[in-house]
Amino acid sequence: MTRIAVCAPATPITREHADAAQKLVAEEFPEHSITFHEQCFRQVGHFAGTDIERLEALIELANDPAYDAVWFAKGGYGSNRITEAAIARMNAAARSKTYVGFSDCGYLLAALYRNGVGQPVHGSMPVSARSERGREAVRRVLRWFSGDGSGLEPSLDGKTPAVAFNLITLAMLTNTPMMPDLSGHIVMVEEVSEHLYSIDRLFFHLANTLPRIAGLRLGAVTDVPENYVPFGQEAEDIAKFWCDRAGFPYLGRAEIGHMAANRIVPFGLASPSTAG
Amino acid sequence: MTRIAVCAPATPITREHADAAQKLVAEEFPEHSITFHEQCFRQVGHFAGTDIERLEALIELANDPAYDAVWFAKGGYGSNRITEAAIARMNAAARSKTYVGFSDCGYLLAALYRNGVGQPVHGSMPVSARSERGREAVRRVLRWFSGDGSGLEPSLDGKTPAVAFNLITLAMLTNTPMMPDLSGHIVMVEEVSEHLYSIDRLFFHLANTLPRIAGLRLGAVTDVPENYVPFGQEAEDIAKFWCDRAGFPYLGRAEIGHMAANRIVPFGLASPSTAG
Repeated sequence: MTRIAVCAPATPITREHADAAQKLVAEEFPEHSITFHEQCFRQVGHFAGTDIERLEALIELANDPAYDAVWFAKGGYGSNRITEAAIARMNAAARSKTYVGFSDCGYLLAALYRNGVGQPVHGSMPVSARSERGREAVRRVLRWFSGDGSGLEPSLDGKTPAVAFNLITLAMLTNTPMMPDLSGHIVMVEEVSEHLYSIDRLFFHLANTLPRIAGLRLGAVTDVPENYVPFGQEAEDIAKFWCDRAGFPYLGRAEIGHMAANRIVPFGLASPSTAG
Repeated sequence: MTRIAVCAPATPITREHADAAQKLVAEEFPEHSITFHEQCFRQVGHFAGTDIERLEALIELANDPAYDAVWFAKGGYGSNRITEAAIARMNAAARSKTYVGFSDCGYLLAALYRNGVGQPVHGSMPVSARSERGREAVRRVLRWFSGDGSGLEPSLDGKTPAVAFNLITLAMLTNTPMMPDLSGHIVMVEEVSEHLYSIDRLFFHLANTLPRIAGLRLGAVTDVPENYVPFGQEAEDIAKFWCDRAGFPYLGRAEIGHMAANRIVPFGLASPSTAG
């Protein structure tokens, strides 16, 4: 059983989102418990509360030995503003926990991984629990918490360490004090709602700043806005082009992204048995 | 007199744009000459020709002693794809030229500055010559070529080296082989058509990756799209917030940006007499 606590380091969810996730756990995963911090429902401008409120909620849950896992409620934007301060205050209980989320929450996953704090995991989030398609993504994480590895990203071989990131999130992390050393890693990237020229520009940055990675996999690139002129290359062409220029092996697609089929990627060499 | 040659390292212009700029030079600045490379009008997908075509046009003009200045026709996106290759092939003639442009052409200005190639200058581009407001921006550059410094960004004091960049362009340049050392510089940044959360995210990256700069000035932040929720801070609040976190002095506004009032910023300690 996994005792899961949820906070929102970036943007808020509604009580309906939380209720849907709680119902799913109660009905289908009675072996787990899930608790939503009140901070999940705060709204201050773009964010789920002020930086201090989001930081305090995260620290409270991470440092509490009563929980096995911290599940981030939703991405959006904003976890980067509290990441360094959070890591600095994490205690022994925080260091033995599992942390699950993706998209904007990649800032936290990165810094946790860099600092060897717990097990960071790319996975879908409670915000998806309100739709039937989304619930399947949420179930995938809950099954993984139960020791069922069927939701793991299928290319994971347990031999090469892997990470998964939103493309912009990874580009913004490079060379910051939150960036883990990704030498020798398989790096999976996904993106949503960005123009293809922006995707090209982000790959330009990564091609020029990432260390010698073991290879790159491209996840889903969804909701690409239409531009005034077609870019001339598709997302996978762009990924291959910059991998060639950087000397990174391009390893094909990854089943991650802003979609119900988003699979689980435990950072590093984690196996299904990592779950609490 | 300045012998100006124009190429398009990113996206194309039309012949009407070129005609308007040529008319302006002929009628109001007969002391200068301006020549448009055919490559300016090429269109291959998003770009003004293939990478090779854009590279060859730039090298042809930069390396030709018949020209004093290379003026980039337009930004958009794409100069980053040819910047390193261009720098590597520049000859002695290229090293004594002035290069003017901004926005996406900041990749080239950055790499020229890093490598001590000629005088890179942030300034408006020929693409603006078709509207009356835009023509005033174009005149400002042409006057500067004539030795008239009235179009310089007013905070330039000739004592502290300065640079000016589009915010995303600078963020994508950080820690790449094209990035100049901006220690001790006043860094001016402007942005267009980006959400405020994106601007916050870019400042997060710069606050965590720029060296000890002398200070930051915020240029115009224009055409900010409306988001589903107000961000809660304006662009200048965001700039101040991240300057405080990074320990960069925030020096106020700069008169640069995607607008007719866009002023001239010669990179480094350049004075009006820099012009050819």
